[in-house]
Amino acid sequence: MGRFVAFGEIMLRLSPPGRELLLQTPKFDVWTAGAEANVATALACLGHDSAMVSAVPPTPLGDAPVRALRGFGVDTRGIQRREGRMGLYFVTTGAGLRATDVIYDRAGSAFAETPPEDWNWDRLLDGADRLHLSGITPALGPQGTAAALRAADAAEARGVPISFDGNYRARLWEAWDSDPRATLTRLISKADILFGNHRDISLLLGERFDGDGPDRRREAAEAAFEAFPQLQLIASTARHLDDVDHHRLSARIDARDGAVQTDEVSVAGIVDRIGAGDAFTAGVLHALRTGQDISGAARTGLALTCLKHSLPGDASVFGQKDIDAFLAGGFDVRR
Amino acid sequence: MGRFVAFGEIMLRLSPPGRELLLQTPKFDVWTAGAEANVATALACLGHDSAMVSAVPPTPLGDAPVRALRGFGVDTRGIQRREGRMGLYFVTTGAGLRATDVIYDRAGSAFAETPPEDWNWDRLLDGADRLHLSGITPALGPQGTAAALRAADAAEARGVPISFDGNYRARLWEAWDSDPRATLTRLISKADILFGNHRDISLLLGERFDGDGPDRRREAAEAAFEAFPQLQLIASTARHLDDVDHHRLSARIDARDGAVQTDEVSVAGIVDRIGAGDAFTAGVLHALRTGQDISGAARTGLALTCLKHSLPGDASVFGQKDIDAFLAGGFDVRR
Amino acid sequence: MGRFVAFGEIMLRLSPPGRELLLQTPKFDVWTAGAEANVATALACLGHDSAMVSAVPPTPLGDAPVRALRGFGVDTRGIQRREGRMGLYFVTTGAGLRATDVIYDRAGSAFAETPPEDWNWDRLLDGADRLHLSGITPALGPQGTAAALRAADAAEARGVPISFDGNYRARLWEAWDSDPRATLTRLISKADILFGNHRDISLLLGERFDGDGPDRRREAAEAAFEAFPQLQLIASTARHLDDVDHHRLSARIDARDGAVQTDEVSVAGIVDRIGAGDAFTAGVLHALRTGQDISGAARTGLALTCLKHSLPGDASVFGQKDIDAFLAGGFDVRR
Amino acid sequence: MGRFVAFGEIMLRLSPPGRELLLQTPKFDVWTAGAEANVATALACLGHDSAMVSAVPPTPLGDAPVRALRGFGVDTRGIQRREGRMGLYFVTTGAGLRATDVIYDRAGSAFAETPPEDWNWDRLLDGADRLHLSGITPALGPQGTAAALRAADAAEARGVPISFDGNYRARLWEAWDSDPRATLTRLISKADILFGNHRDISLLLGERFDGDGPDRRREAAEAAFEAFPQLQLIASTARHLDDVDHHRLSARIDARDGAVQTDEVSVAGIVDRIGAGDAFTAGVLHALRTGQDISGAARTGLALTCLKHSLPGDASVFGQKDIDAFLAGGFDVRR
Amino acid sequence: MGRFVAFGEIMLRLSPPGRELLLQTPKFDVWTAGAEANVATALACLGHDSAMVSAVPPTPLGDAPVRALRGFGVDTRGIQRREGRMGLYFVTTGAGLRATDVIYDRAGSAFAETPPEDWNWDRLLDGADRLHLSGITPALGPQGTAAALRAADAAEARGVPISFDGNYRARLWEAWDSDPRATLTRLISKADILFGNHRDISLLLGERFDGDGPDRRREAAEAAFEAFPQLQLIASTARHLDDVDHHRLSARIDARDGAVQTDEVSVAGIVDRIGAGDAFTAGVLHALRTGQDISGAARTGLALTCLKHSLPGDASVFGQKDIDAFLAGGFDVRR
Amino acid sequence: MGRFVAFGEIMLRLSPPGRELLLQTPKFDVWTAGAEANVATALACLGHDSAMVSAVPPTPLGDAPVRALRGFGVDTRGIQRREGRMGLYFVTTGAGLRATDVIYDRAGSAFAETPPEDWNWDRLLDGADRLHLSGITPALGPQGTAAALRAADAAEARGVPISFDGNYRARLWEAWDSDPRATLTRLISKADILFGNHRDISLLLGERFDGDGPDRRREAAEAAFEAFPQLQLIASTARHLDDVDHHRLSARIDARDGAVQTDEVSVAGIVDRIGAGDAFTAGVLHALRTGQDISGAARTGLALTCLKHSLPGDASVFGQKDIDAFLAGGFDVRR
Ligand SMILES: [Ca+2]
Ligand SMILES: [Ca+2]
Ligand SMILES: [Ca+2]
Ligand SMILES: [Ca+2]
Ligand SMILES: [Ca+2]
Ligand SMILES: [Ca+2]
Ligand SMILES: [Ca+2]
Ligand SMILES: [Ca+2]
Ligand SMILES: [Ca+2]
Ligand SMILES: [Ca+2]
Ligand SMILES: [Ca+2]
Ligand SMILES: [Ca+2]
Ligand code: NI
Ligand code: NI
Ligand code: NI
Ligand code: NI
Ligand code: NI
Ligand code: NI
Ligand code: NI
Ligand code: NI
Ligand code: NI
Ligand code: NI
Ligand code: NI
Ligand code: NI
Ligand code: NI
Ligand code: NI
Ligand code: NI
Ligand code: NI
Ligand code: NI
Ligand code: NI
Repeated sequence: MGRFVAFGEIMLRLSPPGRELLLQTPKFDVWTAGAEANVATALACLGHDSAMVSAVPPTPLGDAPVRALRGFGVDTRGIQRREGRMGLYFVTTGAGLRATDVIYDRAGSAFAETPPEDWNWDRLLDGADRLHLSGITPALGPQGTAAALRAADAAEARGVPISFDGNYRARLWEAWDSDPRATLTRLISKADILFGNHRDISLLLGERFDGDGPDRRREAAEAAFEAFPQLQLIASTARHLDDVDHHRLSARIDARDGAVQTDEVSVAGIVDRIGAGDAFTAGVLHALRTGQDISGAARTGLALTCLKHSLPGDASVFGQKDIDAFLAGGFDVRR
Repeated sequence: MGRFVAFGEIMLRLSPPGRELLLQTPKFDVWTAGAEANVATALACLGHDSAMVSAVPPTPLGDAPVRALRGFGVDTRGIQRREGRMGLYFVTTGAGLRATDVIYDRAGSAFAETPPEDWNWDRLLDGADRLHLSGITPALGPQGTAAALRAADAAEARGVPISFDGNYRARLWEAWDSDPRATLTRLISKADILFGNHRDISLLLGERFDGDGPDRRREAAEAAFEAFPQLQLIASTARHLDDVDHHRLSARIDARDGAVQTDEVSVAGIVDRIGAGDAFTAGVLHALRTGQDISGAARTGLALTCLKHSLPGDASVFGQKDIDAFLAGGFDVRR
Repeated sequence: MGRFVAFGEIMLRLSPPGRELLLQTPKFDVWTAGAEANVATALACLGHDSAMVSAVPPTPLGDAPVRALRGFGVDTRGIQRREGRMGLYFVTTGAGLRATDVIYDRAGSAFAETPPEDWNWDRLLDGADRLHLSGITPALGPQGTAAALRAADAAEARGVPISFDGNYRARLWEAWDSDPRATLTRLISKADILFGNHRDISLLLGERFDGDGPDRRREAAEAAFEAFPQLQLIASTARHLDDVDHHRLSARIDARDGAVQTDEVSVAGIVDRIGAGDAFTAGVLHALRTGQDISGAARTGLALTCLKHSLPGDASVFGQKDIDAFLAGGFDVRR
Repeated sequence: MGRFVAFGEIMLRLSPPGRELLLQTPKFDVWTAGAEANVATALACLGHDSAMVSAVPPTPLGDAPVRALRGFGVDTRGIQRREGRMGLYFVTTGAGLRATDVIYDRAGSAFAETPPEDWNWDRLLDGADRLHLSGITPALGPQGTAAALRAADAAEARGVPISFDGNYRARLWEAWDSDPRATLTRLISKADILFGNHRDISLLLGERFDGDGPDRRREAAEAAFEAFPQLQLIASTARHLDDVDHHRLSARIDARDGAVQTDEVSVAGIVDRIGAGDAFTAGVLHALRTGQDISGAARTGLALTCLKHSLPGDASVFGQKDIDAFLAGGFDVRR
Repeated sequence: MGRFVAFGEIMLRLSPPGRELLLQTPKFDVWTAGAEANVATALACLGHDSAMVSAVPPTPLGDAPVRALRGFGVDTRGIQRREGRMGLYFVTTGAGLRATDVIYDRAGSAFAETPPEDWNWDRLLDGADRLHLSGITPALGPQGTAAALRAADAAEARGVPISFDGNYRARLWEAWDSDPRATLTRLISKADILFGNHRDISLLLGERFDGDGPDRRREAAEAAFEAFPQLQLIASTARHLDDVDHHRLSARIDARDGAVQTDEVSVAGIVDRIGAGDAFTAGVLHALRTGQDISGAARTGLALTCLKHSLPGDASVFGQKDIDAFLAGGFDVRR
Repeated sequence: MGRFVAFGEIMLRLSPPGRELLLQTPKFDVWTAGAEANVATALACLGHDSAMVSAVPPTPLGDAPVRALRGFGVDTRGIQRREGRMGLYFVTTGAGLRATDVIYDRAGSAFAETPPEDWNWDRLLDGADRLHLSGITPALGPQGTAAALRAADAAEARGVPISFDGNYRARLWEAWDSDPRATLTRLISKADILFGNHRDISLLLGERFDGDGPDRRREAAEAAFEAFPQLQLIASTARHLDDVDHHRLSARIDARDGAVQTDEVSVAGIVDRIGAGDAFTAGVLHALRTGQDISGAARTGLALTCLKHSLPGDASVFGQKDIDAFLAGGFDVRR
């Protein structure tokens, strides 16, 4: 198996302790974050050769997330040290009937300011068997769009398959003179795996999908497969929210020739829901990289995202042993 | 709109961390407390001109809550610095099947020791369009009773409407040679809004109200409207407790010519239930002050009390934006 | 009433803060632990004359749990100071769908290394009206087995009744050339009260018990009463787990002439499930020592174990007042 | 050797974290306090049979300090549970050129409210070979004065020697219609050991002592020996303060036939100076109880007070091993 | 006395706990910061009518420092809510031989992005008797320079005296096409009080001042008085550093007709040196506003800066009582 | 430049918060430790290709230190996962006149239990240009001695130079039937650099060295050079202790043809002295690896050890920038 390469912005997440409001008392807990970095971390913790391509400032603020990723076994040699800010974001974890709230403070980050031509994809994709991108990088601005496209082009040119996580962030796209549909269409046209649901596909194709859950998802998937000839798999979760601490989740993977959908799992007592989507992504990729079929991939993706809800911080740091324990079931103390 | 004026004792709440028992480990978290101060804080956070009338000692223990209230925008010029203790109370937050436990240590506080004649209501009510009192102040002792009555008389004399929160504290009344029924009757006879339910009214009128929930509440309300000709609105919540962390709440407002009652809302994953009643009071007053009818007031009061259950500390510090988000619904991360 | 004497290893439990994984951040919370010590602590907090017999190293690591036990009123004069390690264990508290995980680090502890003949049972059982043992001590190795048997023999010789908590730990027994069935049979043959369920009895008697819950438990109990003529009572809980934070519990006590079984209680919002079995044991013994029948003992045992789920740390430190409040019901703030 | 009995108020000390001002952030660290309790704790930690006589409320606030004292081996059977407050005090630890600041909140405590006749000295002094009192108890009010005098009378009647720590608290005496000189004179006339310096003696005798350090102290001691025929030893420390974190200390003991005075020791990097006087008292009593002469007592008292400056909290919890290490010298890591 | 008005950027300071390196463990303590805000806070705590003019984002990150300032009594009505970032900076507090390190992350802040014409000085200076500026605002960029000049012009036009704190930040000036000397000269030419030393004056006048300490400072002061006809007072501290935790400080004020210089004070055990210059500024202004001469002003400024070194966080929050205690001397516990 | 390889036990250090005694409150801070791992970490932070050879258990307790080392850039592929305990040690940081105290709990660790033949030195020394050992590994028992000798033999056979840090631990050697002098002599005879002073050499050669500091050190060095023909450099620090928080340090390196000795540096306000020796070792090796002479090596070693005293935790994590700043001097805030 080759190297998994993720490309995207690394951020520091700052959160108040427990269930306090932001700065209700003057303390922050800090976690390493970033959608693509979360996937790279989760895959490294599952034993994959996983590399992160990004940029952080040459200060202790940039050292810390590099140290965290490297500690989990991510190859961080592709993380440049460049002038610019460290991207930050602030998460106020909700509870009960108060939703979790996020404030981004990522403008002007070292990553966003890196000129598109400063990524040496020849070196960065050496030995790669997958490049993972998300919809966040192109949303960061013209440089981000150019950087994401160059990365995708480089992978395509080298025959490295691309996975793409929709991660549509309306506020980022609206902050500049952007054309998200055109950009995302170009990127997804080069991908073989898309993480996203019918809403992401609607956005790309300008088409609405009706009907109840699974039907609507299949309809959207088929439209996407038609529009993107290289696309082979579309993976998504469906999430119903009873309240902030109690969700019900199922996972689905659509292939060209059929789909699998798991049962719904009830996830109560949620500790930290942030990064759950990235854990799903990592679980699916992990299963596929270890030779499972889409049914196993859906189950593994669901397992990892369920486990993530019990974990403070953004990235899944679970191992295969934890996935096995989850799939075996049983909730009592393990001695 | 004029100034909202609350009169009552300010306390410091000391709580162990998390769900520990009191002094299970030797740490306290500290919060500013006091039923009336909670209402003043909540209204200030909702943009009202809100003032607190109280007394604290001239020490850092008195400085801290004044700083907290002033920080939230409460006008603290009516808070006297006087010799005496800072009122304290100790809250051990329960969990599951262990109820939250409270120990009061408020005897001899600077507020309770302030002679009734030392409150200059001419100055304190200047510009006021409402005086808010609760059943705690008269329960503190003869001086408290006299102080509350003087305050009510002063407001009445100046044509300032009075809202009154029952907050019946049996232990406080029983600690001295008191006549709660007579005292509370005198106070409530001057109020146009009463926060309290059928049990509070039973106590005042010496009458029992039977039947199921809404009927019983209406019967009690009608009796109260008869007994108190100035009274226009009676607002209350109904709370059913599944366990310590999971309650179901509805709100009701009775007017002379009819009543509104909200649906029941399930509040699970409760973080801190203390001060939820004060948040309801503040929500109702906020809605009424901004021109909503009693239906809007019941909904807004319910919204603020539901949100309060997710918040550590005693006072609601939510803004209109938080109420709007609650009423719009949706429990997923807000990015 | 005489003195309750518990014999077993004392440990320190180290846990990460909140719901973090072990060493996710570099902090440990520390609690005094050990199944028998938990029972001794719980009984001391309920007003019994309760003594602990154990061994810890003559260092601050040994001082701390002795200080904790003594602080709760346990007589610690029977705790030897001996060279050897302090037994440690690491608890990662789960959440939602991630189970709590335990790592033991108790090999070579001062207790496990104490020669069986170094316990002076003449002195240690002076004034005792009960000796409490568990299946952990004999599982620690040949010395542990010998020490447990000597203790049981000494109690038998002095007419001190013995209670025995199964606490079967497969991993400990498997770590050496052991014969758990023979050893446990010898020990339980001297006991009048057994804490354990049909699975424990199956293990002892090499017999399977079929059928649904209560029937199966009764069948197992009758087999045990037949096999162990001295045995008078068998107490157990039945636990169904919805998820890590939400269990349903009932308690059962089998006597020779009949059994009692409580209703099932739903315990949600679990704070710390570790030590819940020891709290049940303590509750049953407390009730029996204060003259209640087995019905009261089952209810009291269930009450204490339910309360324990709300409490961080291993030992129940509740008083009679807390049990009374639980049995009286009511989940709202106690002012 | 018999039992050491200390009589006085137990308090909880609340302090902000680190070097913060009081409530600069909303957290308190909590320690068990009280001058006489500190001495009882220190002596128990040094292996003495040490008992505390006091009163605390029957709440978790009273449980905690009893648990702490008992944990350190103090006999707490003489601590009554009575209605009333738990005495509190607030310590803001200074630094550099900002002095440590103390706010007392002890009025109305369960101890101060205990009627003088409610102490059963027959039982409490059973087996005692010393009663330790301080100038704080009589300063608490008429009941405190009466209680201290009764205690002293009871000890005198039973031939139990009395040690007395001056601990003059002007603010307490000034808060009521007191006659400190008459009261303290009566108490000290019954003592054989006085902890106090020339200033304490001046106050008692109404006489000024001039000259430089040792001469002045000797002059005062001789006057005290003349005035108090039972008095055999006067122990004191001399403290010079370079700044809040750096003091220089020496110890002195005057006997009727001579005196010893130690060299001055420089104590820098002070962690917590509160309770240093009580540690000195305990060190002197420890040495005398173990048969050392006044020279050894002065050295031991100085050792324990120096060590106390390195320890957070009010009471010395050091053992003989720590004193030995201090006296042996050497500041590098002990492996 | 009128209103003191400070104009400048408010920031949040994020620091690791204790003496850890930045993100050595993943926690931040948060303090409100900003040179001019520190002065406004310190003066409000000393009883002055003190107002802050600034801009922060309309998020909880902006709410928190406004709440902090308002809590200390600063008038915050002049703080605009505007889109943009909250200015942040990261302080790693040094120790021993490792210096404190600062990382600024203030580019793009709401304050820095506010158009110069968006400050309504007519309203903001209403009732003002002093405007306080520092060299930071003009260093932030062309908009900052324009804003500072407009503020100074507005004050000059209204006859409001201006104080100016040099606070030269080379890195800020070097980040854009700036002319610090021209800009600062224009600003200081309008001021009557300058906080700065011979190095600041050298920079302004392009002249070197030689010789030993006081002579050099006087020479520089005289050159400044000549260059700036409106300037009446120049206040500065001289700081000698033994190591990171131990400095020696003296204060000096030069007037046109003479100077005062205090003795050097040794400040050991430094807790937090950040903001010490702002505390000096506040102390001098406080003394002058309360009618003291320059000798009292130098002593008061030195007192407040010495006290600040003992205080975590950026702003002095001491009261007159603390200054009095400092000037009275004495380092032992204040009971 | 090749790879630096360190071989030794990795431990977790558990420490109470601040200056508390062990378990004075029930919290531990946790740090990655181990003399050789500290050196490997420090060199990785200084940019060297640095690898650790060790063994830890396959549990989260073993994961954490591997994550920490890897995070700092240490190559951890040579760290085996093996059954056994994680080595622990407990550090109670002293203050003032109370020395830091250490309790080891390392017996039975996965490292100590690894059979000597289970280290594959062919692979582990691939690309190495130095192997670093210390006197701790052979002191752990017969397996440790054999493992250390095998490692040294393997390096010798491959021409990889060996550095050896004396780190004499009497208690470890005394715990088994050991011959430290013979073992250490064999090991040091293969080394070209020895970290140790005249006391270490005395122990090896059975010879006493008299006279004052530098003379004695030179005499010892010359004896060592005579006894160990391969030895080229002996590096040591001299430490004088004023008190626990204030030391004076100098560094010395003896070569065959001369020696250098630095001035003494005063290190006050010590935060954490543990690991200071390992930082010195790392500083010397860093300088030598980057081509400095012994004078530069002594200065660099002294710089890194001085900086380490300001840093919580065991390992130096400073970069070249920090050393440069130290050597440039200046203690004020770096902005
Ligand atoms: Ca938001
Ligand atoms: Ca996603
Ligand atoms: Ca209670
Ligand atoms: Ca209420
Ligand atoms: Ca496990
Ligand atoms: Ca059990
Ligand atoms: Ca004070
Ligand atoms: Ca004293
Ligand atoms: Ca820097
Ligand atoms: Ca400055
Ligand atoms: Ca030791
Ligand atoms: Ca060493
Ligand atoms: Ni549900
Ligand atoms: Ni739910
Ligand atoms: Ni995500
Ligand atoms: Ni329910
Ligand atoms: Ni529920
Ligand atoms: Ni309330
Ligand atoms: Ni359920
Ligand atoms: Ni549930
Ligand atoms: Ni258990
Ligand atoms: Ni000195
Ligand atoms: Ni000093
Ligand atoms: Ni004291
Ligand atoms: Ni110094
Ligand atoms: Ni400043
Ligand atoms: Ni400044
Ligand atoms: Ni010195
Ligand atoms: Ni010193
Ligand atoms: Ni070391």
